[in-house]
Amino acid sequence: MQFSVILGNLGNTCDRFLSSGYKNQPTKADMFHQASGIEGVTGIELVGTWDVTPDNVSEIRALLADSGMRCASIIPDHFSQKRWGQGAFTSRDPAIRQQAVQVTTEMMDVAADLGCDLINLWPGQDGYDYCFQADFVHAREWLIDGLRECAAYRKDVRIALEYKPKEPRTHSYLARASDTLLVAMETGCDTVGVTIDFGHALMAGENVAEAAVLLMQHDKLYHLHFNDNYRSWDDDMIVGSVHLVEYLELLYWLRKLDYTGWYSMDQYPYREDARSAINESIRWLEALDARLSGYGTERFDGLIANGDATHASGAVRACLGLT
Amino acid sequence: MQFSVILGNLGNTCDRFLSSGYKNQPTKADMFHQASGIEGVTGIELVGTWDVTPDNVSEIRALLADSGMRCASIIPDHFSQKRWGQGAFTSRDPAIRQQAVQVTTEMMDVAADLGCDLINLWPGQDGYDYCFQADFVHAREWLIDGLRECAAYRKDVRIALEYKPKEPRTHSYLARASDTLLVAMETGCDTVGVTIDFGHALMAGENVAEAAVLLMQHDKLYHLHFNDNYRSWDDDMIVGSVHLVEYLELLYWLRKLDYTGWYSMDQYPYREDARSAINESIRWLEALDARLSGYGTERFDGLIANGDATHASGAVRACLGLT
Amino acid sequence: MQFSVILGNLGNTCDRFLSSGYKNQPTKADMFHQASGIEGVTGIELVGTWDVTPDNVSEIRALLADSGMRCASIIPDHFSQKRWGQGAFTSRDPAIRQQAVQVTTEMMDVAADLGCDLINLWPGQDGYDYCFQADFVHAREWLIDGLRECAAYRKDVRIALEYKPKEPRTHSYLARASDTLLVAMETGCDTVGVTIDFGHALMAGENVAEAAVLLMQHDKLYHLHFNDNYRSWDDDMIVGSVHLVEYLELLYWLRKLDYTGWYSMDQYPYREDARSAINESIRWLEALDARLSGYGTERFDGLIANGDATHASGAVRACLGLT
Amino acid sequence: MQFSVILGNLGNTCDRFLSSGYKNQPTKADMFHQASGIEGVTGIELVGTWDVTPDNVSEIRALLADSGMRCASIIPDHFSQKRWGQGAFTSRDPAIRQQAVQVTTEMMDVAADLGCDLINLWPGQDGYDYCFQADFVHAREWLIDGLRECAAYRKDVRIALEYKPKEPRTHSYLARASDTLLVAMETGCDTVGVTIDFGHALMAGENVAEAAVLLMQHDKLYHLHFNDNYRSWDDDMIVGSVHLVEYLELLYWLRKLDYTGWYSMDQYPYREDARSAINESIRWLEALDARLSGYGTERFDGLIANGDATHASGAVRACLGLT
Repeated sequence: MQFSVILGNLGNTCDRFLSSGYKNQPTKADMFHQASGIEGVTGIELVGTWDVTPDNVSEIRALLADSGMRCASIIPDHFSQKRWGQGAFTSRDPAIRQQAVQVTTEMMDVAADLGCDLINLWPGQDGYDYCFQADFVHAREWLIDGLRECAAYRKDVRIALEYKPKEPRTHSYLARASDTLLVAMETGCDTVGVTIDFGHALMAGENVAEAAVLLMQHDKLYHLHFNDNYRSWDDDMIVGSVHLVEYLELLYWLRKLDYTGWYSMDQYPYREDARSAINESIRWLEALDARLSGYGTERFDGLIANGDATHASGAVRACLGLT
Repeated sequence: MQFSVILGNLGNTCDRFLSSGYKNQPTKADMFHQASGIEGVTGIELVGTWDVTPDNVSEIRALLADSGMRCASIIPDHFSQKRWGQGAFTSRDPAIRQQAVQVTTEMMDVAADLGCDLINLWPGQDGYDYCFQADFVHAREWLIDGLRECAAYRKDVRIALEYKPKEPRTHSYLARASDTLLVAMETGCDTVGVTIDFGHALMAGENVAEAAVLLMQHDKLYHLHFNDNYRSWDDDMIVGSVHLVEYLELLYWLRKLDYTGWYSMDQYPYREDARSAINESIRWLEALDARLSGYGTERFDGLIANGDATHASGAVRACLGLT
Repeated sequence: MQFSVILGNLGNTCDRFLSSGYKNQPTKADMFHQASGIEGVTGIELVGTWDVTPDNVSEIRALLADSGMRCASIIPDHFSQKRWGQGAFTSRDPAIRQQAVQVTTEMMDVAADLGCDLINLWPGQDGYDYCFQADFVHAREWLIDGLRECAAYRKDVRIALEYKPKEPRTHSYLARASDTLLVAMETGCDTVGVTIDFGHALMAGENVAEAAVLLMQHDKLYHLHFNDNYRSWDDDMIVGSVHLVEYLELLYWLRKLDYTGWYSMDQYPYREDARSAINESIRWLEALDARLSGYGTERFDGLIANGDATHASGAVRACLGLT
Repeated sequence: MQFSVILGNLGNTCDRFLSSGYKNQPTKADMFHQASGIEGVTGIELVGTWDVTPDNVSEIRALLADSGMRCASIIPDHFSQKRWGQGAFTSRDPAIRQQAVQVTTEMMDVAADLGCDLINLWPGQDGYDYCFQADFVHAREWLIDGLRECAAYRKDVRIALEYKPKEPRTHSYLARASDTLLVAMETGCDTVGVTIDFGHALMAGENVAEAAVLLMQHDKLYHLHFNDNYRSWDDDMIVGSVHLVEYLELLYWLRKLDYTGWYSMDQYPYREDARSAINESIRWLEALDARLSGYGTERFDGLIANGDATHASGAVRACLGLT
């Protein structure tokens, strides 16, 4: 498992009631330092505007080098500026749609510059809030056209589409794994795939392992974001805070179907020491994976071939050493 | 709008606590009589085992004729017998999988016999309950293979796959619109499409209109089941009990994209007079559709082109005459 | 129905991805002007820190006078400052708990100064995020002690506790109507009651009318906040965007049990023209109430005495004029 | 921990699609034999009508004696007969309400006869399905009056009210912990308390430990039912299938506040070998409790006094031995 961290997780996360955030904002250098100090972390995931722009690439390159980190992926900013408020790729304004493509291709260039071959594209503002507000027909066309244009721009940087059922819109166009796989397929581009964010999948009512298998069978699982929540909302909590068995099942299938991408931490530790919160997530993932490996994934193979739930329950307990 | 009714809605619906049901079981003839007495109903949707078997086709033909009803669709029984308990199309036992195909093809023949070209296939037991129970890889293969075999059996009867996120399993393989569209597409058969059950879509966190547009754009919206619920569960209530605006939006898009299939009532009026409960649903649909038509769908076209939520809110109120 | 508006609804609402907000921030005078221009609005609800402080009371008094508005209530700020991040009334730090009381009593004085007898107390940061984080025993004691101290400070200003299941914490201590009624009762103070926020009650899985009846029967329904959502989250949308029948049922019971408090709008029109969005909510409430009154609440009395769901369905349709 | 099992869990559980059940119905003697064969089980919880009636008390006494089991509680049947379909304690028909009291007092006598001092009262049909169907005012009066009458009948048998947000009604009157505590308090009877069913509390959006603490602080936590689910519905699964951390937190607080009642298994192992499924639940509870005890509850005391979520996360991992 190669671990990465979204840089901003180490910063001052805010919410709508406390827009100045619960903590103080550290410097970029501080955040790189914090991230690199977490055992096992070898990659940094950068957000456009917040962390990286076409103008600060050399600064970022230096920070990566100094901290011994690789750039795991870049998340272009399609969500944190007023201009995206009514959608980026699906804005009714063609100029905005063009800008959505442009910030993506710029970040593809930056990624390539930084030796990274992955864009994590989260079109968070592309959705709608009210009935009779969305133009489902055109929105889908615009989204697919825009993604095609991005993918055509250069083939050496892949685009992973991150889905989420809601927030900041009450409904996102890329809401669930299959929705997003379908869009990826309909672009006709073999460099467009999907990111699963564990918490987004829970919100979507998915069993995360099932979503991962579907995507891996289509060679479309490009990236993973890790966090946990209480299923109704993207609480962005420490891995393992709520779900352990589902994490274990996901790790089993990732091993089984040879997932080779990043395990990237995506949390909002509003009130916690960020470094500690992210460290906890990685320690949970390592501990679960070690248990899985110690128990033997092949023993789960047999259980799954058989499908007996009570045997599975006992195996999970044994695997966790809780006997 | 051509309305149909699932015959069993008029019978004695039970739950897990009162397995003998809240009412008395009427005869088939009674149920046909009740259905045909509801203004606007011209079709009956039949469930295998419960209503129709290869052995009672002539009885059913007579009941249809006597009541002046058409057979809208047949729902093969893949859920109400012990043999399906661990899955039908995705059973680990190839003999059961073969039986799942067989009951489908039998019902395709029966449907054709009754002048009906539509099977509504709800693989309710095809799913799983626990982590480490499902074999996602094989289950998907088996499901697609079985559907292909059914579709190949005869081309003059279409197969509409009905999705539902859960119940009776905690997770269904056909859980959401896109999941199901993807399966339909992967069969490679142009007679395999999708049924939207309004309540199932709500449970899945979908905006029903959005799901319908997606399927219509792929020429895959074959059938519709109507009911209402409180979003967390398939309460199978009277249409309009909870949701009016989302129903209105769905009706708009069905008109806009020329849906020509049935509007079939699928309720569980456990404690209500069944005929009255179903009648209510149809009266709500007619009333909403009449308002839509009176207001003018083209006025919503303009709103949707514009995307302003406050204008949409005002238009909905005006459309409903609530000014 | 006497309508009021939370002033900040007319401002620049932000979220965690766009902390500078989707719009520009108008001046206080602009917001008062906007509010007073909405037909039917006679009251303004003010938020501490954001709108009102002990230092700007005369400015606010003038703005109220100029716009012809009354102060409907004040919401003391227990949520928008870093110091409240780990709780206000339930902070483990007694100095913070004392500050929570102090900002409340200050706002009680300000309210009285402005001719208002109501504090809407939303202890949004009083909750917890993780298992094994909360000290349920002490938190409850501290909360009740703090509320008693506030209530004892002066009896001529009532305190309405606003509940919400989650956000900004994953779990709030005042999460549901009965939780909050119980706390209000346990203070032993007859000037401590409850606010229902329609959307918070939906999130809590409540039927809002049932919650309102429970509180009214205990003489504890002091205040109402209006908005709408999709049940899983506090989307703070326009009234009637999603729920009409439940709004109608609530309005019936408010009439029936003689609710005499404010009908206060509490929305987050992130991307909408705020004045229009709030105007829409009031137009919906007026339209529904007019229909109720035209139909005759006494006809619903009879239906409720009888309990037949199909009759209720028909009555709702008739009441809305959808026949 | 003294473990008990609801007898019917070992029988043939059905659902609304397969009303004859997924398995075959064993005899009562078989079910007693199965239960007593599960290591650690010392009590049986009986359901009225299904298991026990005033007429078969001597048979039940013999089965208890033969299997060496105690009667943990009796659940009077207020849900499995047509007469309760529109409510038992809250039926609009006073004769039905009287019958609801009568079956309760009969079961109180039977319990006493069997040396048991606890009735688990689950008024599952007491609720409503539709808006404008419920008479909230009278329903609450009738419920409280009926409970008072039951409690007054004899003081040596306590009554624990089991809450559940929905099913078989879309809304239950006893829906959440505080709702139910309030009703218990309002009866004015000190032998009326509350049962927490772990899965019902999850459905209600509660943190189960918090609900348990609230009830224990009021000396009202009389009984516990154990199972697990995916939060949206009462899936009645094996303990630990989904939630481990929340179970651990609950067990901590039960120890901390000296819960002395039963740990009763309440599952619906539709498709599983029932004995194995129940055995799994008890093994999970024992394993978690052993870990808690080995780690030292006093170490969690310190964490809770401090409230740091990252420390809590690490402690949970250490407590489970996952380091």
